[in-house]
Amino acid sequence: MKQAPDRKSGGGTAMKEDGRRRVVLENLKPEIDGGRFPIKRVIGERVVVTADIFADGHDSISARLLYQGPGEKKWREAPMALIENDLWKGEFVVEEAGVHHYTVEGWVNHFKTWQRDLKKRWEAGPDVKVDLLIGAGQISETSKRASMEDQKELVNFAEMLKGRRDIEKAVSMALSEELAELMNRYPDRRFAVPYGKRLGVVVDRDKALFSAWYEIFPRSLSAKAGRHGTFRDCERILREIAGMGFDVLYLPPIHPIGRANRKGKNNTLELKPDDVGSPWAVGSKEGGHQAIHPDLGTMEDFERLVEKARQAGLEIAMDLAFQCSPDHPYVKEHPGWFRWRPDGTAQYAENPPKKYQDILPLNFETEDWQDLWEELKRVVLFWVEKGVRIFRVDNPHTKPFSFWEWLVGEIKRPFPEVLFLSEAFTRPKVMYRLAKVGFTQSYTYFTWRSTKRELIDYLTELTQTEAGEYFRPNFWPNTPDILPEHLQYGGRPAFMIRLVLAATLSSNYGIYGPAFELCVHEALPGREEYLDSEKYEIKQWNRDIPGNLKDFITRVNRTRRENPALQKTVNLRFYEVSNETLLFYGKATDDLSNILFVVVNLDPFHTRSGWVHVPIHELGINPNQPYLVHDLLSDDKYIWQGERNYVELNPQVLPANIFRVRKRLKKETDFDYFL
Amino acid sequence: MKQAPDRKSGGGTAMKEDGRRRVVLENLKPEIDGGRFPIKRVIGERVVVTADIFADGHDSISARLLYQGPGEKKWREAPMALIENDLWKGEFVVEEAGVHHYTVEGWVNHFKTWQRDLKKRWEAGPDVKVDLLIGAGQISETSKRASMEDQKELVNFAEMLKGRRDIEKAVSMALSEELAELMNRYPDRRFAVPYGKRLGVVVDRDKALFSAWYEIFPRSLSAKAGRHGTFRDCERILREIAGMGFDVLYLPPIHPIGRANRKGKNNTLELKPDDVGSPWAVGSKEGGHQAIHPDLGTMEDFERLVEKARQAGLEIAMDLAFQCSPDHPYVKEHPGWFRWRPDGTAQYAENPPKKYQDILPLNFETEDWQDLWEELKRVVLFWVEKGVRIFRVDNPHTKPFSFWEWLVGEIKRPFPEVLFLSEAFTRPKVMYRLAKVGFTQSYTYFTWRSTKRELIDYLTELTQTEAGEYFRPNFWPNTPDILPEHLQYGGRPAFMIRLVLAATLSSNYGIYGPAFELCVHEALPGREEYLDSEKYEIKQWNRDIPGNLKDFITRVNRTRRENPALQKTVNLRFYEVSNETLLFYGKATDDLSNILFVVVNLDPFHTRSGWVHVPIHELGINPNQPYLVHDLLSDDKYIWQGERNYVELNPQVLPANIFRVRKRLKKETDFDYFL
Repeated sequence: MKQAPDRKSGGGTAMKEDGRRRVVLENLKPEIDGGRFPIKRVIGERVVVTADIFADGHDSISARLLYQGPGEKKWREAPMALIENDLWKGEFVVEEAGVHHYTVEGWVNHFKTWQRDLKKRWEAGPDVKVDLLIGAGQISETSKRASMEDQKELVNFAEMLKGRRDIEKAVSMALSEELAELMNRYPDRRFAVPYGKRLGVVVDRDKALFSAWYEIFPRSLSAKAGRHGTFRDCERILREIAGMGFDVLYLPPIHPIGRANRKGKNNTLELKPDDVGSPWAVGSKEGGHQAIHPDLGTMEDFERLVEKARQAGLEIAMDLAFQCSPDHPYVKEHPGWFRWRPDGTAQYAENPPKKYQDILPLNFETEDWQDLWEELKRVVLFWVEKGVRIFRVDNPHTKPFSFWEWLVGEIKRPFPEVLFLSEAFTRPKVMYRLAKVGFTQSYTYFTWRSTKRELIDYLTELTQTEAGEYFRPNFWPNTPDILPEHLQYGGRPAFMIRLVLAATLSSNYGIYGPAFELCVHEALPGREEYLDSEKYEIKQWNRDIPGNLKDFITRVNRTRRENPALQKTVNLRFYEVSNETLLFYGKATDDLSNILFVVVNLDPFHTRSGWVHVPIHELGINPNQPYLVHDLLSDDKYIWQGERNYVELNPQVLPANIFRVRKRLKKETDFDYFL
Repeated sequence: MKQAPDRKSGGGTAMKEDGRRRVVLENLKPEIDGGRFPIKRVIGERVVVTADIFADGHDSISARLLYQGPGEKKWREAPMALIENDLWKGEFVVEEAGVHHYTVEGWVNHFKTWQRDLKKRWEAGPDVKVDLLIGAGQISETSKRASMEDQKELVNFAEMLKGRRDIEKAVSMALSEELAELMNRYPDRRFAVPYGKRLGVVVDRDKALFSAWYEIFPRSLSAKAGRHGTFRDCERILREIAGMGFDVLYLPPIHPIGRANRKGKNNTLELKPDDVGSPWAVGSKEGGHQAIHPDLGTMEDFERLVEKARQAGLEIAMDLAFQCSPDHPYVKEHPGWFRWRPDGTAQYAENPPKKYQDILPLNFETEDWQDLWEELKRVVLFWVEKGVRIFRVDNPHTKPFSFWEWLVGEIKRPFPEVLFLSEAFTRPKVMYRLAKVGFTQSYTYFTWRSTKRELIDYLTELTQTEAGEYFRPNFWPNTPDILPEHLQYGGRPAFMIRLVLAATLSSNYGIYGPAFELCVHEALPGREEYLDSEKYEIKQWNRDIPGNLKDFITRVNRTRRENPALQKTVNLRFYEVSNETLLFYGKATDDLSNILFVVVNLDPFHTRSGWVHVPIHELGINPNQPYLVHDLLSDDKYIWQGERNYVELNPQVLPANIFRVRKRLKKETDFDYFL
């Protein structure tokens, strides 16, 4: 009569292995797409797991959270506790990089039931003699599983419950914490019910969650006008970039650039002899994705740059642009990796009617897809061997999701410290899917979200929904591809506004280099493209011209580094402020030891003021006692009290405040924060 | 290099069967608990399926919905169409009882991509000759899979696209609907991606969704005072119950009642010799769950009652109370099915400090659980063989969920017409789980939801969330166990209010017989228990005393039968009305051919009035044109116009209106509804 479990949806079940397993577990969170994808954490973060756990009838139940570090075979365990309405909760902390797993299990706890009921019976009347015998039986049974020492104690308890003439004393022993704890060491889990799914947590190093990126074109770094910059030139600015508070230096592709169909300045088809082409047109007869552009330097120069950057506190992020110029070596060596047209030409990238003749997409539907995948993996491993640990992936949404899932998995298994940033500006579900299949961080719509409503809606989606478990935003106010409208017309205050928003709303953010700090705002007419874009030509930047934002950026980045509340994203909460152009939000650490409030004037032209609504009750601030808020941007201090407080921001001076809240310390005499 | 798929969450994937499968499918709805449980429908209902379906890049995709009837091996298919934002939708209709299945699949459609791009290219310039050749190639490939006739046509198309000098004509042929349709018959599904889960739909007969229950104690039906009523007595009232519009006659347990520890009147321990005991104390030496109480009649009488009821338009619903009186034959025959205390007595039911000494629960943790399960299945099949097709299950939440999932599956596989009503008044997740594991209908919290806010919140949860897919509410204003407070003090109007609410909010509802229509409202002091409850004694009802609600109930049930909008539950929508004691809601059929609005005065004491907000735009009503609303309870008619209209309800006269809306018909001259 015993049959294997059969849980075809709707077919009912066959009689199961053991019908005595009475607990059910459902609605476990976090669980992405039914456990198909892992959640993400960095080292030291908590994983809080909740689930609905219950059984038929009135018996008490118990549950535990099981978890495993990378490569561990045995489960560790953490207790789960009932919160309310059959919802249970437990948590664990992840302590190393790599893939962790978790699951839960629950069981009917007859001893807990017995203690609970004995208490009620005893309160109702003295006739509990038989009940004490029942408990003694359970204790005896349990003692058989116990350690020698505990066994002795348990047997003692059982004897005392059975033999006792003084019922009152027996009941008090039966209900004692001591007995409960002893019994709890040897729960009867014969009929424990496993949740049945092993759920993943990809654990990254800290930088996955907290990073400040600076994008720069090395070829524009020559000290001498008109000359092609080199990795050596790049070395000269490392201290300066790091000094501004950035920790990732992202370089557009550093490979040889194709000559066939090369684009001229401003993306035109008329090429001049000295036009350098777009770095994203990867590959020429000098080499492909594993080669270095001869004008930038040698492989040794690159490795030296990686090392010098490291010494300066910067990591080099490499661009992975899996596409080829028409004279990339792959085109001859692996014609099968491209699509060919009936006229014998290779199919270039196109989004009709737009044509990108200097770029051939790889054909992931090739019969040789396995060779193609393996080759691309070799490319990544090649750069990992050169010391690169961060990859910014160009247009990942034009390559199959299954390829990325495989590739990221293959790389992170031996190198869990490698981070991948997805540069997909496309439809929302596509962007989320890329994060699910493994990308560490993701570009976002922040670049185009500028009104109060837009920012609140988008950030609420990113931080207060399931997306917060697997999608780590990286906010970019600009990129070489995008000079958004508000930066074109808003002047220097607009750049400051967007920087503060990016750097405080999201713990990961980045800027496209000199063009941002110099407030470059000239676009092609009616477009979001930079005029004379650096993508197609060498620029000469004077990074020290008056009005540059270096000091401001430095201050913002220092604030980020000194305040752990800004080093997470999902802790963001918006609060009310009585002005539609002011945005008011806060971040705090779990233990409330670091609490920040940010007010941003979204209007770059006019002074705006309003009353903020400080959530003092959430923060444990006494409504009758003043507290100090310290603006870390201006260094001004204000004494606030209660919920409503006044703010006023002149964008020409400073369009934002980042207030650090200093609560009254425990000692009544401790007024040091008023100094 | 080929490896089996490996999708351990977070471990990345191994290289999959075929990396060329580029489509992803996610967020499929409806899908209960990741496909663990089926959704529910009745014959003739639609299953609308949505899913997020997309691929990398810019290629067009196609998707189809696959479904199977009971026992079908091959999938039928229905088209899916893109709604917006990568969300696709398809639907099918279920046409027989039994378990159906559905799933979806998607694929990259290169021909659709080609047609879409050709159109754009052609609009941008005349240079599409090579593109036409590419299309011709796709058509040739496809022709190899086509029927002889279609093959000829496709080859013709390919030739014309290749050979054509007149590019304009060739393009117009290439973009023709005719070609698109022809190609669509032979899609290239080599790399189609299946969703991967086969999801269930339990399809029931209509009564699962639309039923009116009447509960009665046959032993109270004797024409002669003091005598025990019989099945023959029961036959006499069948026409009357059916005439009131009920279609299910539910009888409390009809088995022999235990004598051991039998409870006296009002659930007391002092038993008088003529006390009849609670029918839920099942079993005595006369027999158990397959026997009939000797005072009710014989098995032949019961079968005759089932048949007579059927002839009157009523189905008998049987009570399944899987518990035993201490003198049930099981106790001696299967002592292992009960818990025994150290003093040698069987453990009776208890919820400390409450004791139910006349009832022994079955021990589902017995070593003999398999025999126990099989025996209980035999009980159900026994009554199925006697003609019973509806079971009201007593306290299912005190037996394991896995048992119910198995039992309901075992019974419904050969007898898909059998319906199970779950009488679980317990915690919300437990009640939902019972519905998930297979119960056809469920008791609810409606009995205690009486304020406007409570009703809107609860009904919104039942109808506008996923619960609507598997939990079919059955609303009971009262039961032999529950005389809710509002019926104790609200008088006859309160009974009318609760009847209209139950019968129009939910398409399944029921009342506990004479006590309801006679407005019995005397309770044990401070409790929700009936005074002199029929559970413990034989009652003598005069069902025709003045003030009885028979006519009113008849009218409400007729309205339900004549208006298909009231025969579903998830179509419920609440609308605004400017009075906190008035509730305003509507139901309509999918095609809007039947539209009803209900206004209920929740205050049983005072006349209340207000302005309802009619959703004329949803219903296609012209704001400038009057429309007729016909109150099916009073037969009054009103001419309304626009959104705001006045209502006034005197609970002493009629505490509710059920308006049928008659829209202006299409012909301008058609004013018949004004007559």
